Amino acid sequence: MKSYLKHDEWKIIEEGFHPEHNRISESVFSIGNGRMGQRANFEEHYSGDSLQGSYIAGVYYPDKTRVGWWKNGYPEYFAKVINSVNWIGINIKIAGEPLDMHVLKHQNFRRELDMKTGILSRSYVVSLSDGSELEISSRRICSIADPEIGAIEFQIKSKTFKGDVELSPYLDFDVENEDSNYDEKFWEEVIVDVNGNEGHVMAKTRKLDFTVAAAMEYAINGSTIAEYNISKKNNYVESTSTHNLEPGDMLVLNKYVGISSNMYADKKEVLLKAQEAASRAMNAGFEKLLRDHSNSWQAKWEESDITIEGDVSAQQGIRFNIFQLSQTYTGVDDRLNIGPKGFTGEKYGGSTYWDTEAYCIPFYLATADQNVARNLLIYRYKHLQKAIANAEKLGFSCGAALYPMVTMNGEECHNEWEITFEEIHRNGAIAHAIYDYIRYTGDKEYLSEYGLEVLIAISRFWAQRVNWSEDKKKYVMLGVTGPNEYENNVNNNWYSNYIAKWCMTYTMESIAYVKENHPDKFAGILQKSSFVEGEMEKWKNICDNMYFPESEEHNIYLQQEGFLDKELLPASSIPEQERPISQNWSWDRILRSCFIKQADVLQGMYFFEDHFDLETIRRNFDFYEPMTAHESSLSPCVHAIIASKLGKHDKAYEMYIRTARLDLDDYNNDTEDGCHITSMGGTWMSFVKGFAGMRIKKGMPSFDPFLPKQWKSYSFNIRFRNKLIHVSVSNQGVKIDNNSNSAIDILVYGEKTQIDSGSSVSVAMNTFESAAG
Amino acid sequence: MKSYLKHDEWKIIEEGFHPEHNRISESVFSIGNGRMGQRANFEEHYSGDSLQGSYIAGVYYPDKTRVGWWKNGYPEYFAKVINSVNWIGINIKIAGEPLDMHVLKHQNFRRELDMKTGILSRSYVVSLSDGSELEISSRRICSIADPEIGAIEFQIKSKTFKGDVELSPYLDFDVENEDSNYDEKFWEEVIVDVNGNEGHVMAKTRKLDFTVAAAMEYAINGSTIAEYNISKKNNYVESTSTHNLEPGDMLVLNKYVGISSNMYADKKEVLLKAQEAASRAMNAGFEKLLRDHSNSWQAKWEESDITIEGDVSAQQGIRFNIFQLSQTYTGVDDRLNIGPKGFTGEKYGGSTYWDTEAYCIPFYLATADQNVARNLLIYRYKHLQKAIANAEKLGFSCGAALYPMVTMNGEECHNEWEITFEEIHRNGAIAHAIYDYIRYTGDKEYLSEYGLEVLIAISRFWAQRVNWSEDKKKYVMLGVTGPNEYENNVNNNWYSNYIAKWCMTYTMESIAYVKENHPDKFAGILQKSSFVEGEMEKWKNICDNMYFPESEEHNIYLQQEGFLDKELLPASSIPEQERPISQNWSWDRILRSCFIKQADVLQGMYFFEDHFDLETIRRNFDFYEPMTAHESSLSPCVHAIIASKLGKHDKAYEMYIRTARLDLDDYNNDTEDGCHITSMGGTWMSFVKGFAGMRIKKGMPSFDPFLPKQWKSYSFNIRFRNKLIHVSVSNQGVKIDNNSNSAIDILVYGEKTQIDSGSSVSVAMNTFESAAG
Repeated sequence: MKSYLKHDEWKIIEEGFHPEHNRISESVFSIGNGRMGQRANFEEHYSGDSLQGSYIAGVYYPDKTRVGWWKNGYPEYFAKVINSVNWIGINIKIAGEPLDMHVLKHQNFRRELDMKTGILSRSYVVSLSDGSELEISSRRICSIADPEIGAIEFQIKSKTFKGDVELSPYLDFDVENEDSNYDEKFWEEVIVDVNGNEGHVMAKTRKLDFTVAAAMEYAINGSTIAEYNISKKNNYVESTSTHNLEPGDMLVLNKYVGISSNMYADKKEVLLKAQEAASRAMNAGFEKLLRDHSNSWQAKWEESDITIEGDVSAQQGIRFNIFQLSQTYTGVDDRLNIGPKGFTGEKYGGSTYWDTEAYCIPFYLATADQNVARNLLIYRYKHLQKAIANAEKLGFSCGAALYPMVTMNGEECHNEWEITFEEIHRNGAIAHAIYDYIRYTGDKEYLSEYGLEVLIAISRFWAQRVNWSEDKKKYVMLGVTGPNEYENNVNNNWYSNYIAKWCMTYTMESIAYVKENHPDKFAGILQKSSFVEGEMEKWKNICDNMYFPESEEHNIYLQQEGFLDKELLPASSIPEQERPISQNWSWDRILRSCFIKQADVLQGMYFFEDHFDLETIRRNFDFYEPMTAHESSLSPCVHAIIASKLGKHDKAYEMYIRTARLDLDDYNNDTEDGCHITSMGGTWMSFVKGFAGMRIKKGMPSFDPFLPKQWKSYSFNIRFRNKLIHVSVSNQGVKIDNNSNSAIDILVYGEKTQIDSGSSVSVAMNTFESAAG
Repeated sequence: MKSYLKHDEWKIIEEGFHPEHNRISESVFSIGNGRMGQRANFEEHYSGDSLQGSYIAGVYYPDKTRVGWWKNGYPEYFAKVINSVNWIGINIKIAGEPLDMHVLKHQNFRRELDMKTGILSRSYVVSLSDGSELEISSRRICSIADPEIGAIEFQIKSKTFKGDVELSPYLDFDVENEDSNYDEKFWEEVIVDVNGNEGHVMAKTRKLDFTVAAAMEYAINGSTIAEYNISKKNNYVESTSTHNLEPGDMLVLNKYVGISSNMYADKKEVLLKAQEAASRAMNAGFEKLLRDHSNSWQAKWEESDITIEGDVSAQQGIRFNIFQLSQTYTGVDDRLNIGPKGFTGEKYGGSTYWDTEAYCIPFYLATADQNVARNLLIYRYKHLQKAIANAEKLGFSCGAALYPMVTMNGEECHNEWEITFEEIHRNGAIAHAIYDYIRYTGDKEYLSEYGLEVLIAISRFWAQRVNWSEDKKKYVMLGVTGPNEYENNVNNNWYSNYIAKWCMTYTMESIAYVKENHPDKFAGILQKSSFVEGEMEKWKNICDNMYFPESEEHNIYLQQEGFLDKELLPASSIPEQERPISQNWSWDRILRSCFIKQADVLQGMYFFEDHFDLETIRRNFDFYEPMTAHESSLSPCVHAIIASKLGKHDKAYEMYIRTARLDLDDYNNDTEDGCHITSMGGTWMSFVKGFAGMRIKKGMPSFDPFLPKQWKSYSFNIRFRNKLIHVSVSNQGVKIDNNSNSAIDILVYGEKTQIDSGSSVSVAMNTFESAAG
């Protein structure tokens, strides 16, 4: 855990440069606009430690996999999130010396990300070798108002320096991925050109021919009149002008970049699109671009902001999570998804994990139009045939589908057998998201349109994946990896067995619904899926006879068979210097230990809480929570929600802080690789479903809020079926405003209330004493 | 399974070229001499499918590992058996056309390996594009009499051809490993030179600086007088002469090569050594080299031959196995070991697996001086500190040792976690080999000299590797992979638990022995190992309370916990076209199936047969044998031995043929990668321990032979404690000759007999009816 960043309600601030944490800062201060994103690398050259990263939505590279020993069924490639054009770059020489913070003395460094406006800024004072000083400052945006535009303002002010300053804005596609498996570069030049203060590079990926163009224009002190020295290299253009500075003089360079890809334009149009965007930006000017950008952010915040009074650190944390989620995925393009690192790093590869369904969809359901979540579901629908092909590759048949663990385009693109072949519970999360979406939106017709086909294919998979144990006289599921990836290849993971049974049950209910309500569509689905209703006989039989490991002694469900053979120790017994164990213990030792990477049995109790009484949930929580190391970013949120439900307010608060400030405080010592974007959906859940106890019950939003003792109050907005409500919680009680055009029924502490349009209700705080643990 | 090779008692014969099986033939027809080896690649250029392979003992490359996702404790490199100099090469042009069997028409192809003499020969008739014909033939050896020498005779006889023939013998270090992880070449040129009919190349590996030199001299039609065109390239020399041929004319090229490495010479001397060897060979001449080589082979066969009357296929099989073992490892160098592919391929990497201890040591014990087996034990003793360091890396402490799964120099060099971290039973085989060696040789003093230190370190490992299960009130061993690699990360593998307990028990017995008989040495060992006798308290406690999974219902030991949850099917239910499943099923499906790659519970019953009554062994055999797919080369031999013991003669024969002809008939569809050298020790065991029922009992050789009904008779030699006996078995009975200088006590069918020097005993055949299953 680190705490070098300042606490502030709206801003992320680094005061004084921390080169040892530079990669972390580069991740945390990343900016993006759903279409592209950029780590907080410096504009000027920096020869110190840095992870360069500029990412374009939907553009990836199918890198050859690396495995020691190939086995049948392994994926053919590992899709890389691809480092793309360096569009921010400005080489600067001052009296011939390159401006490089790693080499030159500097002071008063400040890096600041204003989340309210989405502007990244930076400033410092640099001293040259002769002792003369200059003030450097920069601001930049990835415009969220016009997502083809990136814009930079770079200022150099002489304090005591006299002499020439060379400014060389450039565009560079000759970049690397650190994570490249074979040290290859991924970009091939298509066109480069530069003239005066304008230049462009178009390049394509060496495989799949993704084509991206970047075009730049720039002005210095508001003018484009200067003498330019231009240069071109492979995949690179640069334009240089030289300016004489006296003490007190200032140079202001504005660089405007347009970026376009063949995701959004015909290949022949890509370059033109980029050039048009650059010109559009140049014509608008920097201040106008900032204004439009800030206004767009303001609109986003109006719908999604969460306020916390009395705890700056918590306030900063939740806003940071919302900010990152909002700039990663905007929900307008059903070909895109939410990569685990978003636009903040290249690690993990692929773009879509079960994170989307389990942790992100609830956020988008409650803060955006319901089409955003629906697009995320349709994304999977479109991949159904590939999921069926994937299952066939592994030996399944008859339309059974196994969705990939990681994907870009529907194909599996990860390559550890214990993950790709065995972490099959992901299929369950995909089915559960359909249920979750319908529960939230009431859009039951989604089943007949898309959902049922997916559910049938997933249920077929489960029915083939279990086998009858003569020994147990039960159906068992062998050789799986549950959500807790600190176990591999276990038998009868309770969560996997449970969600498999649930999937089959829900599919059968959905079949009955569609059959009754949409007989025509149902006939179509039968035909398309070659489904016969007789298949359900086997499903029923499996559901009736599924094996679930339990411990009579502890009166809990067992995470998997044999779990009690482990040496059961609390995670608190792990010495501080050995954490995270993923970075300090051998893999073997981790696997044999009882320590849990992320909620597993508890993940199931979170998904299906109504299936269990409070005491059962409490016993399981009390058993597993102490052994949980939370080394997955997806863990604390679920624990926070259950702890809230159980009245364990301190635990809920602890877990909330851990997920909300995971990256800001680098809890898991891996933020240098990028931020944990998908887990930010979990942060939001831990707040709204945890502290505010929000659920959907009988088609109504339901709240059971409590106020952490560290806070004075909190508030948030919720969209529900085209209605907008505002929830505020303080010591005075719970106040809910209906900001919609029509009345809404809600539940507060189980009591149903109708709130008229424009009205509000207030309810006294329930202190939850009875449930407290 | 393939059967394109002719059956013959002493020869391996390919009649008619089988380009589709060329890689298999290249493996099977490999020749070597313990110091180097060469696949049966052609001398002349061949543009068809081929795996080029020339290997030098002890020379390897620490290739960067390939893993998708690095985990703590993973080895840093994967040691590659390295393809070395192409020393056999002769480029040939006939009237300007390259001689290339892939391009030119040919007939009457014959490839032959005479195992009696160790000579590889080949002949065919080639037709040029103008229809003229030439007879091509070659013979070559890797001299076993002078292991620095390789020699070739290449003949070209014109039948109807008139014109020029260009002969270009060359040496080429610019070679590749197909299995290179990063498509790198491993050799860097040091010196190349060529003059007239002499040339040499010295190269070193890019890492570790292994230095190897090859020098050649050659004569044409017995003469060195000609006009030579020489050429040099990177790592390559060639010398060309041109000869005019008329119909009936013959060209005989003799190429003599000396090969030396810094394993056997100072780096400064390596080239000189190679040149001296080449000159030595040239001066001796081809026929003399053949004679010396054949004589050496004759001496080997006199001690190790096994004869089978009445079954040419079985006879060829056993000789092929003995031939390969003899040319792979000669036992003179305790830095070397027996690689799984010997000198016949590059697959698997590394050189030492537990194969050596479990399958090869028995062969060398009974067919060579006892120092050969002792050297193999000392090899592990020398690696003890590295095995301790390996265990430390995984979190063990206090001198616990985990020997690597695969090694070249004592360091782990494999990289699948389920193997390196979990297939820990290898430690047991290493301890068992000490026991086996002492049982065979009576050399109990080995314990105080070397053995005990190794045993203590191994027992310490087991004591830390198990943990107490509160649930079972027993010690359990979690997360292991047993010998059956079609399971991974299982709990309480019966074999692993059993051998762990045995190791600790045997170590405690050995401690008692050394303490009593060698108190001084014992004190030294205590000090060196920081061992305190109190450590044994825990070992005893573990041994007394170790958990062993069993099935009451089936009255068998369970391969691992949960095994009975699988769908239990016989391996015979696998459709022929899906075999081997390792090449046709997804890894996931294999793991979940009940099918067993190689003996697991039965491996334990083979090692510790005296611990179990016959009925227990029979029940376990009857349960596991039908599920065993034998897709490991190390499986059939153990099944053959147990089947023999149980009187299941047909099964024993079936298993024997499968192991003896594994490569000749390519049972597992992978001989193209190289032969299964270590399993050949298993073939020998299945014969001597299986059919002949040989054991060591009370310090005496004991035999319980039977004669497979397919055979008329068989015979073999056994060395036992410096005595040589000959065993013949026929329908007439068992005859044992004592060919030693002193009397020997033996057991035949449990009856003790003394045989005087030079005498023999004959015993009637026991038909084993009572034990037949």
